[in-house]
Amino acid sequence: MKKSLSLLALPAMLAAALPAQAEVPLANRAITQAEVLAAQNGWCKALLDIGAAHASGGQAAAKALAEKVIDTAYGYQMGPVLFKPTLTVAPQTFRTTKAGALAYFVGGDPAFPKDDGFALKGWTRCEVSNSAIFIAGDSASTQGNVSFTGKDGKVTTVDKTWSYVKDDAGRLRIVVHHSSLPYAPR
Amino acid sequence: MKKSLSLLALPAMLAAALPAQAEVPLANRAITQAEVLAAQNGWCKALLDIGAAHASGGQAAAKALAEKVIDTAYGYQMGPVLFKPTLTVAPQTFRTTKAGALAYFVGGDPAFPKDDGFALKGWTRCEVSNSAIFIAGDSASTQGNVSFTGKDGKVTTVDKTWSYVKDDAGRLRIVVHHSSLPYAPR
Amino acid sequence: MKKSLSLLALPAMLAAALPAQAEVPLANRAITQAEVLAAQNGWCKALLDIGAAHASGGQAAAKALAEKVIDTAYGYQMGPVLFKPTLTVAPQTFRTTKAGALAYFVGGDPAFPKDDGFALKGWTRCEVSNSAIFIAGDSASTQGNVSFTGKDGKVTTVDKTWSYVKDDAGRLRIVVHHSSLPYAPR
Amino acid sequence: MKKSLSLLALPAMLAAALPAQAEVPLANRAITQAEVLAAQNGWCKALLDIGAAHASGGQAAAKALAEKVIDTAYGYQMGPVLFKPTLTVAPQTFRTTKAGALAYFVGGDPAFPKDDGFALKGWTRCEVSNSAIFIAGDSASTQGNVSFTGKDGKVTTVDKTWSYVKDDAGRLRIVVHHSSLPYAPR
Repeated sequence: MKKSLSLLALPAMLAAALPAQAEVPLANRAITQAEVLAAQNGWCKALLDIGAAHASGGQAAAKALAEKVIDTAYGYQMGPVLFKPTLTVAPQTFRTTKAGALAYFVGGDPAFPKDDGFALKGWTRCEVSNSAIFIAGDSASTQGNVSFTGKDGKVTTVDKTWSYVKDDAGRLRIVVHHSSLPYAPR
Repeated sequence: MKKSLSLLALPAMLAAALPAQAEVPLANRAITQAEVLAAQNGWCKALLDIGAAHASGGQAAAKALAEKVIDTAYGYQMGPVLFKPTLTVAPQTFRTTKAGALAYFVGGDPAFPKDDGFALKGWTRCEVSNSAIFIAGDSASTQGNVSFTGKDGKVTTVDKTWSYVKDDAGRLRIVVHHSSLPYAPR
Repeated sequence: MKKSLSLLALPAMLAAALPAQAEVPLANRAITQAEVLAAQNGWCKALLDIGAAHASGGQAAAKALAEKVIDTAYGYQMGPVLFKPTLTVAPQTFRTTKAGALAYFVGGDPAFPKDDGFALKGWTRCEVSNSAIFIAGDSASTQGNVSFTGKDGKVTTVDKTWSYVKDDAGRLRIVVHHSSLPYAPR
Repeated sequence: MKKSLSLLALPAMLAAALPAQAEVPLANRAITQAEVLAAQNGWCKALLDIGAAHASGGQAAAKALAEKVIDTAYGYQMGPVLFKPTLTVAPQTFRTTKAGALAYFVGGDPAFPKDDGFALKGWTRCEVSNSAIFIAGDSASTQGNVSFTGKDGKVTTVDKTWSYVKDDAGRLRIVVHHSSLPYAPR
C-alpha cells in the first residue's frame, strides 16, 4: 500500500478552493520566547527613555512618557497588576493600580509620599539576564537578574520576575512584576 | 547618554552565575503551528496504519493499534472528548468516551451496533488541507478539509475541525474533533 | 506544635496594610461553564433577533443587526475565524472573514451568491443541547445539538461545535464554529 | 413571535439521546480562585509539616517529606521552575532544579553549601495575605505577604509571588516562586 501523506499533493479541486498550506490564515495568541525577550528589552529601553525625558524635559515630560509606557507595557486595563517594585515599603509595597506604578517610576504623587522616582535616578544602562523562562501558553514568565548602571558606573543588580499575557492586539503586557534586592546575609 | 540594551554585555560576575541567553532553561507549554501540522499528519498516518494492521493482522491487530492511537493522540484521559465523527447517527452521534471512539475507528463493539470501522475501509491516502488555524495559547484549532482516497481511487472529502491541547509530556492531544460530509443542497 | 493556617488570623499590621481575603483584587481571564452557557444562549437569541429584525425592518435592518452580532460575538477582529456553517458549499464552505459570516446569516452579498440568509428563515425557537464541554483555560469548547424550529413547527437539528476565547474586555468570542446536518446513511 | 430559549425544553428525541444540561460531561483545565487559595494553604501546611517531621524524625524524615512535597506541589517535572527563595545568594540565587529547591527547604546538600534548611527553622505558623490575584486561564498568579511565626513568637513577613499551572491530573503546580524580604531603606 502506497501511503502519501504529503500536504502538498492536493487534488486539483481542493487546491483551487483552499489556500496552500504555507499561507493558511493564522491567528496566534500564544506567546513565543522571542516576544518575551523583546518585551524585556522594551522595558529596559523604556526605563532609560523616561530618564532621558526627565533630563531633557523635566518631571512633566518624564511623567507623560511613563504614563504612556505603563499604558502600553502593563496590564492595568485588564484588572489589578501584581507589581512589587524593588524599593517600596509597607503599607504601599504592592502597586496593584496604575497610579501606584506611575508614582513608583516618576514620583511626585502625594498619595505615595515615599516614592522618589526609580526611573529618574540617571540610569545609563539596563540589562536583563534570565535564569529561566516558563511559557504556559497564554502567559509567560521570566526570572533572573536585571542590572542597572548608574551615572557613576555603579551597577545595581536586582532579582526580577515578570509574567506577561498577550492582549487582543497581540502585545505582551506585564501582569506580574516582582523585583527585589539580593538577600544580604548579616 | 549611551544606551546599551545588549543582552550579551553582561557584567563578568553575572556571566559566571547565569547561563547565556541562548541557553536559558525554557519550559514551553504553548502550541506552535508546526506542532499542529505534525499532529494532523500523525492522525492521517495513524488512520492508514490501522488499515494496514487490519489488512495484515485482522480485526484484533487493528483494534490493538487503534487503542494505542487513541491513548496517545486523543485527550480521553483528561475527561470527555468532543468527538463528532463523520458517519455516526443519533443517539450515538457524539463519542465522548474512548470506547465510542474505538468503536468508530474499528467497529466490532456490540454497544455501538452501527459502527463498521472507519479505519478499516481500505483508505490508501489521507490528506489535510487547512482553511485556517487559531492558536489560543494552551489550545489550538484547525478547520478545513481532509480527503481520503479509497482502494478504487475515489476521493471522499470531509469538513473537519480539530482542537488540541498540549499535555504535561508536551504532546498535542485532540480534545475536539468534528467531522462532517459536505452539505449537499437538494 | 500548634498549627494555625487560617487566612483570617492576620497580624494586626498586615490586616491594616492588605485587603481581607474576601476582597482581594482579582483579574480573571479564565472561562467558566456559566459563561459558556450564556454565550450559547446569546447566540440563539441573536439568531432569532435577526429574524425578527428582518420581519419588521427588512433586509437592511437584519443586516445591520447581524453585523453588530458578528462584531460582538465572533472573534474576526483577532484574525481568521474557523467557521463552517451548516449550509455552505465549496469553494465557499469556510467563512474565515466577517464578510463571509455576514453573507451566511443574512444573504444579499453577490460575492457569496449561494447564501440566502440562514437567520432569515423564520426560526421561532433555537435550543442548545450540549453533549460535552471542554474548558482548556483561556479557551472553551462545546459540542452537541442545536435545534431550530421553523414557522411550521418543523424542527431542524444540527450537530454543532463552538470554541470561545475571552477577549480583553471579558467577553467570550466564537473563534471556532462547525455546524453540520446529521449524517444520513443511504 | 414567541421566543423560547430554554435549555430544558428539549424535543423528546433529543432528551433521550443527550444528557440534561446539569450533567453535561465537563473537562475543566481552567484555574479557579478557590484552587489558588487551597494551593497557598497547602504550601503553608507543607512547610510546617516538614518542620514537624524534622522535629520528630530528624533530617532524613524532613528530607523525605520535602521531596514528596516538591514532587507534588512544584512543576519541576515540566521543566525549569522559576524559584527565587527568600534567603539564597548568588551564584545560587535561582533554583531552577528540584535539587536546588530541596536543598533550600531542608539543607544538607554539599552542592548548596549556604543552605541550612528554611523549613527546619521551627516555624509554628504560616499565613498568606494576598495583595491581588491574576488568573490568566491555564495559569494563575498571586502576590502578597506570607508571614512565618517562629518558636519565639517573632513574625517574619516576606513579599511573595507564586504562579501556578494545572497539570493533567488537575493539580495546581508552582512554576514561579519569588520570595524576598521587605525592602529596608537605609
